[in-house]
Amino acid sequence: MNPVDLTLYLVLDPDLCGGLDNMVETARIAALNGATVIQLRAPNQKKRWWLEAAQALKAVLDPLQIPLIINDHIDIALAVDAAGVHVGQSDLPPAVVRTLIGPHKILGLSTSNAEQLAAVPLALVDYIGVGPVYPTGTKLDASPVIGMDEFARLMRAKTLPAVAIGGIKQGTAAPLITAGVDGVAVVSAICGQADPAAAARQLLSEITGARS
Amino acid sequence: MNPVDLTLYLVLDPDLCGGLDNMVETARIAALNGATVIQLRAPNQKKRWWLEAAQALKAVLDPLQIPLIINDHIDIALAVDAAGVHVGQSDLPPAVVRTLIGPHKILGLSTSNAEQLAAVPLALVDYIGVGPVYPTGTKLDASPVIGMDEFARLMRAKTLPAVAIGGIKQGTAAPLITAGVDGVAVVSAICGQADPAAAARQLLSEITGARS
Repeated sequence: MNPVDLTLYLVLDPDLCGGLDNMVETARIAALNGATVIQLRAPNQKKRWWLEAAQALKAVLDPLQIPLIINDHIDIALAVDAAGVHVGQSDLPPAVVRTLIGPHKILGLSTSNAEQLAAVPLALVDYIGVGPVYPTGTKLDASPVIGMDEFARLMRAKTLPAVAIGGIKQGTAAPLITAGVDGVAVVSAICGQADPAAAARQLLSEITGARS
Repeated sequence: MNPVDLTLYLVLDPDLCGGLDNMVETARIAALNGATVIQLRAPNQKKRWWLEAAQALKAVLDPLQIPLIINDHIDIALAVDAAGVHVGQSDLPPAVVRTLIGPHKILGLSTSNAEQLAAVPLALVDYIGVGPVYPTGTKLDASPVIGMDEFARLMRAKTLPAVAIGGIKQGTAAPLITAGVDGVAVVSAICGQADPAAAARQLLSEITGARS
């Protein structure tokens, strides 16, 4: 089990962030204002872009000791020695990923329902993503929205650290924490916001407030 | 330098082939009828599909001693222990790829002009793709077509084995061989043809005829 602080998990979207340079700057600001882990997710980008982006993010995040997680592309994670990877149900299976990355990198897996939650290989995966918890415009191929009753059931059933994802913004994070999730993941609630520093601080404040 | 017989290089397109199962069968038929190397290229597919497809292709091609080359996704090549990888100018750079795959896997690199040809790192790359040599409808983001005069110049300048690609079909392969290329790569000239066995045999015959 590789530990990861899921409290405020920023998933970077290069389009929402306004391109590579702005995305890296958003990551830096978020890391300085409460983001505890940052994922790069860019399904429409080619690998050379990915490499440049991941290297630039690592240069900014390593000194701040914020782990960089690479979505889907294990080759990019290996190339830049990222802290970990995150895969979905249509990506490489956890057993294959774990073989490629070795025992000491963080491995996250997306789940959308009780069946997928029950199928998670607990010895291989470090944390699960659970969502979408709210409607989202960011991920076009997202699964059906999980209602709050079902989300609470999933939180009672889970045995791994979990981060909620999908349409979470200021004002909607607290109920998820109350339901038992370890952290919340956001995309548009920070990426592309006029004041990403304030957005990150307010989200962190809401999460820590709901925990106490 | 990892040797590879580029004579008749089939690039599989799952859509043109009619899906995964038909694609694997096309690969088998092509391998039995003259294809010397086979690449899987599927930019629109998710990684779990890639894994399944690459494993199925390896199961068919390994007994026939036909190398399987994986386009772009080094993680898939590592996961299935493919014979090699092929990357384009927007994919991971050869130096990064070579570090990930080690010294004993085939590494191919696409080039489209004299500048790219001159920039190929000769100690890292095993062969180059050169194209498009003819107009093609298969690769929507292809570079401008290389005229035959320029292609012949590139062939005189090259110092690595080269395979021509782009719109090659029966009747248009011979001039490329005459110009000095080591082999030809085809997609639609085999994938989705009514008789892929005959198509492969005829292409091979044209290539070997032009060599003599």
